[in-house]
Amino acid sequence: MKYIKITGYILMFLIFSIDTAFGQNILWKEIANGIWKASVGEPENISLLKAAGIKPKTDAIQKLPKATFPFSKEKIGTKIIDGKTYLRFPLTRNEQIYGFGLNFKTVHQRGRIMQLHVDHYGGSDNGRTHAPVPFYVSSKGYGVLIDAARYITVYAGTAIRVDADDPPVLRDRNTDKQWQAQPYSDAIEILVPAKGTDIYIYGGNKPMEAVQRYNLYNGGGCLPPKWGLGFTQRVPTLYSQDDILKEAAEFEEHNFPLDFIGVEPGWQSMAYPCTFEWDENRFPNPKKFNEQLLKKGIRTNLWLNPYVSPKGSLYPKVKNLSGSHTVWNGIIPDLTLKKIRDIFKEHFIKNHLNIGVSGYKIDEVDGFDSWIWPDVATFPSGISGEQMRQIYGLLIQDMTAKWFKELNQRTYGLIRASNAGASAMPYVIYNDYYSHRDFITALINSSFIGVLWTPEVMASKSAEEWVRRMQSVCFSPMAMLNAWADGTKPWSFPEVEKAVRDVASLRMELLPYIYTTFSQYHFKGLPPFRAMNLVNGFSFDQKTT
Amino acid sequence: MKYIKITGYILMFLIFSIDTAFGQNILWKEIANGIWKASVGEPENISLLKAAGIKPKTDAIQKLPKATFPFSKEKIGTKIIDGKTYLRFPLTRNEQIYGFGLNFKTVHQRGRIMQLHVDHYGGSDNGRTHAPVPFYVSSKGYGVLIDAARYITVYAGTAIRVDADDPPVLRDRNTDKQWQAQPYSDAIEILVPAKGTDIYIYGGNKPMEAVQRYNLYNGGGCLPPKWGLGFTQRVPTLYSQDDILKEAAEFEEHNFPLDFIGVEPGWQSMAYPCTFEWDENRFPNPKKFNEQLLKKGIRTNLWLNPYVSPKGSLYPKVKNLSGSHTVWNGIIPDLTLKKIRDIFKEHFIKNHLNIGVSGYKIDEVDGFDSWIWPDVATFPSGISGEQMRQIYGLLIQDMTAKWFKELNQRTYGLIRASNAGASAMPYVIYNDYYSHRDFITALINSSFIGVLWTPEVMASKSAEEWVRRMQSVCFSPMAMLNAWADGTKPWSFPEVEKAVRDVASLRMELLPYIYTTFSQYHFKGLPPFRAMNLVNGFSFDQKTT
Repeated sequence: MKYIKITGYILMFLIFSIDTAFGQNILWKEIANGIWKASVGEPENISLLKAAGIKPKTDAIQKLPKATFPFSKEKIGTKIIDGKTYLRFPLTRNEQIYGFGLNFKTVHQRGRIMQLHVDHYGGSDNGRTHAPVPFYVSSKGYGVLIDAARYITVYAGTAIRVDADDPPVLRDRNTDKQWQAQPYSDAIEILVPAKGTDIYIYGGNKPMEAVQRYNLYNGGGCLPPKWGLGFTQRVPTLYSQDDILKEAAEFEEHNFPLDFIGVEPGWQSMAYPCTFEWDENRFPNPKKFNEQLLKKGIRTNLWLNPYVSPKGSLYPKVKNLSGSHTVWNGIIPDLTLKKIRDIFKEHFIKNHLNIGVSGYKIDEVDGFDSWIWPDVATFPSGISGEQMRQIYGLLIQDMTAKWFKELNQRTYGLIRASNAGASAMPYVIYNDYYSHRDFITALINSSFIGVLWTPEVMASKSAEEWVRRMQSVCFSPMAMLNAWADGTKPWSFPEVEKAVRDVASLRMELLPYIYTTFSQYHFKGLPPFRAMNLVNGFSFDQKTT
Repeated sequence: MKYIKITGYILMFLIFSIDTAFGQNILWKEIANGIWKASVGEPENISLLKAAGIKPKTDAIQKLPKATFPFSKEKIGTKIIDGKTYLRFPLTRNEQIYGFGLNFKTVHQRGRIMQLHVDHYGGSDNGRTHAPVPFYVSSKGYGVLIDAARYITVYAGTAIRVDADDPPVLRDRNTDKQWQAQPYSDAIEILVPAKGTDIYIYGGNKPMEAVQRYNLYNGGGCLPPKWGLGFTQRVPTLYSQDDILKEAAEFEEHNFPLDFIGVEPGWQSMAYPCTFEWDENRFPNPKKFNEQLLKKGIRTNLWLNPYVSPKGSLYPKVKNLSGSHTVWNGIIPDLTLKKIRDIFKEHFIKNHLNIGVSGYKIDEVDGFDSWIWPDVATFPSGISGEQMRQIYGLLIQDMTAKWFKELNQRTYGLIRASNAGASAMPYVIYNDYYSHRDFITALINSSFIGVLWTPEVMASKSAEEWVRRMQSVCFSPMAMLNAWADGTKPWSFPEVEKAVRDVASLRMELLPYIYTTFSQYHFKGLPPFRAMNLVNGFSFDQKTT
């Protein structure tokens, strides 16, 4: 190799630049009761909270008990090197860490390494997930958010500095049985591949208070319409409006609750890519179709993904305001542009909201890598492919939710990608990964990071599994059966039809309580489905959890 | 969100900057017969080929048939945006792509997405592997190398531009059974997270010629000592010098070949972290130990990882020339610094080479993430944690190989991490991932990317498996049994002792031929173990492969 010689001059330069780059003197400002914000380096024009368009509930935050800054500010390390931001936060012995995205297999995050990256969950908690929220909650009662729309690498108590404050014990693997493959680390270290970021610290006297502050600062949790908390069935993809009316009638016959129906890709004249226009054969009269369902108290929710088909009327309008690449031959609207949002708003309100559509299921804004734009994609706003991937789910939730708000309606839909700042979004995350055990873990983890998650029910192998899945979905944010691919009904296993109906009926009886829980989410920031680790009196001794 | 308004001014700026940034006019220089190089943006001070310290064999390259630039230069897209390099290379219909690192499950890389990242292979071909070489070979007979020591993201025929030259067919998933989840892409797109890079294109009339040019430009393939191609056994970790001499005698009794012995961590006074000093109890007289073995024609190979123990004599000398973080409580020497290399050279030559040690097994320079420095680590040379991770295996191969070369000796060792430029390195890659089928795939893939790979033999579940593993290792670059953890011997399954001895003997009988094959690697760049895809007369119809 060409040797790199360190001359005295370069050494001096390095020492100088690291010294000044260390941000021990960054300015922490208390922006609300017990919430502090600081900027490191030059934060980018777009961030997660900016994309989410949060509106902090400062009054509600003011009512929370006072909190002090959770550790010595001098223990926070920040530096900018070569256009990247290096962050360090202290950890103490026995401190436990939760959050860092919608993980499916792990609750305790201390000792883990991940790169937070919006993606379909692929079976391991490596940071690639539907909501890779860069927010963590400590058992000591505080939370930290890195508000950067970037692929952030997190070392949650794994990186060990030569000059650690609380270094691990030195042991010889040859002879010492106490030798550890993973020695003790006294810090969380984070690499943000950007020249700066905003950081938020949410104080608290216990973990729940930190979570409340996080949710309230994001605008408080969403408050769904009551129908949104009922039961919903997604019908097979090529069902016509007549098929769906028939399906609704069957629910009535089976004495099974049905509050809204999910209409899958076949409602569109082409999908994928999408036209966002009704198919004239399967849906000759969508207005009448929505009215007929509404008479029975049933709403409609339309499936879509955002990739615009050349066959649709929107295409020529958005072509020059879209990304460099296609997804499934559809162009990718740059949703950070007001002009694009205006075009979508006009089309969607006219063709959907104004004829009674109550919400959307927004698919494929997560990944896999093959089913989304590449990181080499560029967008007319100048936002990179990486940034757009981290925020697209937030942008489309924010855009669609505002349409309903302007019409003074509530909505409650489904989303496949989300991120920090989403607490107030009237959307529930779903995917098509089907480990029942992992579903429950995700439900637990959703409560740390201000998102909602539903373990949607699809085909099961046995009647027993069918009941168990129905039971968990009925105690989740959205009680949904998704029959888009296989046409399953709640009564598909006759031997457990009663058990399934019972649990659905129980959901309906509990609806006032569930609604009340959501109002606590909305007004107090208390997550409606809570990890035990957030509940008063829960032991934080890891051995007992 | 805070809306981003595109004013006329910003739009103009974007159009202007993209136009000028597109590098259609980058200068391609023919640097050797049929090898072209171009610089895009500002290449970094350190790169893979720089770290490898390659010495091109231009005379041998000159003897290859002439080759033309493999596609129109205008089809290469390059731009620099926000400190990152975006690259695009054309693909034609039916063109097949090989390489992109030591993959264990896939040979054909077209249609795949990966981020090339030095790591322990974790079970999926996502780019994280022991040698994530950013080099690909086309069935059309050319190769492309991106010489950047960065985590490079590759879209190998998956990304589809709105303005693609050869766009895919538009289909409606609702009604068209020909709809494809992965439409056709006419390009390889690559994101290099650095403000520039060098690119090399290796021409050829067939894929093998491109591989030959790549290997010869890297200095030609390594030529091992003859003993290196014999049989080697790694002994249990706490074996003393007497235990090892006894083991050597047992090989003799069993009439089993033994050319060098791998001495595992217990040779050191402490490991891990390492002192690189002999343990006085287990190895009271290392000089005599080496001499006694050498009398029987047996060499020694010492295990190490590079993390320096505070208990060793090297520690105070290298402490201020090491990284910010520790690995297993050892400090990480910055091997790009001449001063560090001088300190290591003095210690290793004096204590090992001068008493007859013939090589090293260099462990844990790959990952997992938990067992290597974090990306937030900094190094005194100013090289980032990410860059250091991509080159550390190259640096340590280059450093150690040079010691032997200076003493006019040949060496042949084991390495866990490598990268582009390694063809001439006298090292074979190994790991502790044990799928036999995947071993063979890695052996195939090693031939595209200028590295050697051994499917080392460890414990097996059955006698049948034991024979199969012995058979593959005896037809690999290094015939090795690794008993560091379990003490297995070649004759551990008595029912197949003869079959195992037969295959080992066959290896020894074939040794002249194997050595000749390696000399072709050295002088002509022909890989010693070859994928069929590189062999004359092989069909490139994917259906037949």
